Amino acid sequence: MPDIELNFSRAEYAERLAATRRAMETAGIELLVVSDPSNMAWLTGYDGWSFYVHQCVLVPPVGEPVWFGRGQDANGARRTAYIGEANIVGYPDHYVQSTERHPMQFLAGVLAERGWDRLPTGVELDNYWFSAAAYLALETHLPNARMKDATGLVNWQRAVKSARELDYMRAAARIVERMHARIADKVEPGLPKNELVAEIYDASLRGADGIGGDYPAIVPLLPSGADASAPHLTWDDRPMQAGAATFFEIAGVCKRYHCPLSRTVFLGKPPQYFLDAEQAVLEGMEAGLDAARPGNRCEDIAAAFFAVLAQHGIVKDNRTGYSIGLSYPPDWGERTMSLRAGDRTELQPNMTFHFMTGLWQDDWGMEITESIVITATGVECLANVPRRLLIKD
Amino acid sequence: MPDIELNFSRAEYAERLAATRRAMETAGIELLVVSDPSNMAWLTGYDGWSFYVHQCVLVPPVGEPVWFGRGQDANGARRTAYIGEANIVGYPDHYVQSTERHPMQFLAGVLAERGWDRLPTGVELDNYWFSAAAYLALETHLPNARMKDATGLVNWQRAVKSARELDYMRAAARIVERMHARIADKVEPGLPKNELVAEIYDASLRGADGIGGDYPAIVPLLPSGADASAPHLTWDDRPMQAGAATFFEIAGVCKRYHCPLSRTVFLGKPPQYFLDAEQAVLEGMEAGLDAARPGNRCEDIAAAFFAVLAQHGIVKDNRTGYSIGLSYPPDWGERTMSLRAGDRTELQPNMTFHFMTGLWQDDWGMEITESIVITATGVECLANVPRRLLIKD
Repeated sequence: MPDIELNFSRAEYAERLAATRRAMETAGIELLVVSDPSNMAWLTGYDGWSFYVHQCVLVPPVGEPVWFGRGQDANGARRTAYIGEANIVGYPDHYVQSTERHPMQFLAGVLAERGWDRLPTGVELDNYWFSAAAYLALETHLPNARMKDATGLVNWQRAVKSARELDYMRAAARIVERMHARIADKVEPGLPKNELVAEIYDASLRGADGIGGDYPAIVPLLPSGADASAPHLTWDDRPMQAGAATFFEIAGVCKRYHCPLSRTVFLGKPPQYFLDAEQAVLEGMEAGLDAARPGNRCEDIAAAFFAVLAQHGIVKDNRTGYSIGLSYPPDWGERTMSLRAGDRTELQPNMTFHFMTGLWQDDWGMEITESIVITATGVECLANVPRRLLIKD
Repeated sequence: MPDIELNFSRAEYAERLAATRRAMETAGIELLVVSDPSNMAWLTGYDGWSFYVHQCVLVPPVGEPVWFGRGQDANGARRTAYIGEANIVGYPDHYVQSTERHPMQFLAGVLAERGWDRLPTGVELDNYWFSAAAYLALETHLPNARMKDATGLVNWQRAVKSARELDYMRAAARIVERMHARIADKVEPGLPKNELVAEIYDASLRGADGIGGDYPAIVPLLPSGADASAPHLTWDDRPMQAGAATFFEIAGVCKRYHCPLSRTVFLGKPPQYFLDAEQAVLEGMEAGLDAARPGNRCEDIAAAFFAVLAQHGIVKDNRTGYSIGLSYPPDWGERTMSLRAGDRTELQPNMTFHFMTGLWQDDWGMEITESIVITATGVECLANVPRRLLIKD
């Protein structure tokens, strides 16, 4: 193994593995096939943009995890994961994007060699990186494995953050502060939107406090005017217009840990309904933050926020937040907890959320959000960016 | 439908739909469920970073395609796709990342309502965006549909580019030229790598010839020294070192159309084996480009390139290119043709490839590549960047 620098201590990786194995035992799973790159990184340190081909980390009943991926990416595993040479397994390149053979067929052979082909096997059924074809190939070539759904099994172990993880998220918070400061400085009517995006990336990558920025799991979203009625549009190269609002949904990122934060800019004089909506969101956020404390539940934050919106006559028919942390594209959420009715997960210290209080209405949108960490007694906002509509008249 | 600006004429979208239906007919498919965002965009214009939740475009036997996605993203469909209101279908937010219900269950209901629940149905089995759980949910809730594998069905229709598509790829080529010029200008020992990435993004986003840049489907890959033995590492915030090579695998992007291009920089005096490898790659590229003409096959380009490498005693045990064009993360390849032995697809005018001639050896790597378009009589390199190792001594 080359002399590599891990982002966490070996002890922390060992704890993560132990926690995962406890969850496997509870679920009756003896072999876990982890396809989610965020889970792969969290368990082993593996970091690389190789998730466009099939790959996984195996968690066997005992011993070190196994990295399995494309042969040419094995060097990436050697240089970023703590895994020893015996447990780095590459498959030949003619399995890549082939119509004749599937990498999961090769994996089945690896499992047979190691005597792991008859174990109750957990797979992440609802994950971007575990396709239907991957499942069907494993089913065909592992006739004696009893496959079980392990979607979210590792993700849930990631819910409560360690001190080091919070350090990275705080560094990401410093970065997103710089990004919003840059927007406030540069945005003006006539500026082509792509040039504003260049400024946002510049601030995000140069980073803060001597820590360089990493790439976000979601690119900047900054639709204007009626386009802001859609939450997930990216950008074009047209000039920024006076008389319109633009929301900026962006994240600072440090070592793949995210601090998302949205703010909205109005170029000109906002109409009264827009100012009213700002007022509703800010009041609602205060109510939600008041409810964000250990012992309360995810849905309590949502209920507090939605109650204030309702008083203002505003309907938001989507969740108002989700768990965040380590992430790879396409989502900076952890896909476990959601801040919405029915999510009765108890809030615990060092859980982290994007309190996603965005409004997308018929022909306008507004996002003013916070990333939060549950503390021993309440809540802390990770970033410090003025929580209000930025009006540039 | 709001007054939207499509990237292609309605006639071109109609041709794409007709070509897709011909392929469906050949495959015995009457309803196609298209989950790949690149295919969704190619068929309808739909553009947004919403692929982190389940969504698809349906191609029914007759009539307009249907956009299906999260309710809050329906406005994005209204604002980017040519689809009429009756064919934009959003599902409620409590289906998002739920452990109790799956969006494909909701889709099954939509299909039943429209009388499409008993048709031979194509699904993209091996696609990032069609998970095993999505497949199992459809199987459960569409007991009378005969599901067939349609992986790559739409992708293959995209292989030969239209004039307008080539316009966008040429604009992307102008952008990637600027990006490499910026690297040549800025790279030097001591420069923190994240700051160099900021320069690369700045050049890519500001664009060229008045056309702003779009985000790449793969973030910049720029490992140095022994890290360059791994093809898919991204970046860190350490200073660039003298005495080491760094490859830059990057793409210019215009309206989601990519022009990838890699170059390698050596800071200092390269060792002889590195210069020898450069020589082998450049000679091999000439041989490969000579073989790139209509009537030849994908594997002919690869054979010509690998033959020269072999003369120089270099083994590259992975494919040497792939089809490119419209793309969303995580891959700028089209996942159809590969330049490798066994791919006997005949080259046709206006097919486009990334001629990916990268070498990743035990403790070093080098990438000098071209994006190419097959012409009526031969080949054209899309971008014009000096094809050689950049040595900054």
